[in-house]
Amino acid sequence: MSQPVDWSVLARTCPSRKSLARIANKWTAMIVTVLAGKQLRFTDIRTALDGISGKVLTETLRDLERDGLVERQAYAEVPPRVEYRLTPLGRTLYDPLRALVDWAELHVPEVLAAREHYDSQRA
Amino acid sequence: MSQPVDWSVLARTCPSRKSLARIANKWTAMIVTVLAGKQLRFTDIRTALDGISGKVLTETLRDLERDGLVERQAYAEVPPRVEYRLTPLGRTLYDPLRALVDWAELHVPEVLAAREHYDSQRA
Repeated sequence: MSQPVDWSVLARTCPSRKSLARIANKWTAMIVTVLAGKQLRFTDIRTALDGISGKVLTETLRDLERDGLVERQAYAEVPPRVEYRLTPLGRTLYDPLRALVDWAELHVPEVLAAREHYDSQRA
Repeated sequence: MSQPVDWSVLARTCPSRKSLARIANKWTAMIVTVLAGKQLRFTDIRTALDGISGKVLTETLRDLERDGLVERQAYAEVPPRVEYRLTPLGRTLYDPLRALVDWAELHVPEVLAAREHYDSQRA
């Protein structure tokens, strides 16, 4: 497999840094895991991602669509129906983002204990 | 292997969502990959992460330290020397975060092409 040689997230102006910012994002991680194997409406996604504002979800979906990770499917119905799904490129993000979601859920006790310890040292 | 059952990033108030926000972050991804197998000074990390402000790096390292992912090692020297390294818990993030960095670098051409296509549809 060829390795990336021309792009580096460590370079301030490299476009890969902007991509990293898009994908290394909690809402992206949640959207990609929620859309895995599914096609969902805006309101379904918003309900699944308890607490996300309509504005942030709109912007995040638009950015993901612009970067080719999510596609918008509009059905000519009355009322019009729009659904979102992962593109083949977006599906390649499932494994690493699912790993982050799993990590966050699995390590809650250790992270909370670390925070308590840190704060107690500085109280 | 046991599966996480009690915590869900999809629940607004679950502490795992805050953890996810911390780890699904471009600076966290870069810091964890840069610190892999190394112990570095603040200025070394700042140089490696071209473009990060001192304020953001200070805050990010403090948050990672508080969550038990990075540890600060102070050496009683003149002038004092402080170095940062990953904790064992922080090292468990290397694989998924390295995967995101690699993804961002590998898929630059596809993402740029998708953006160009998206923008051309709306010009």
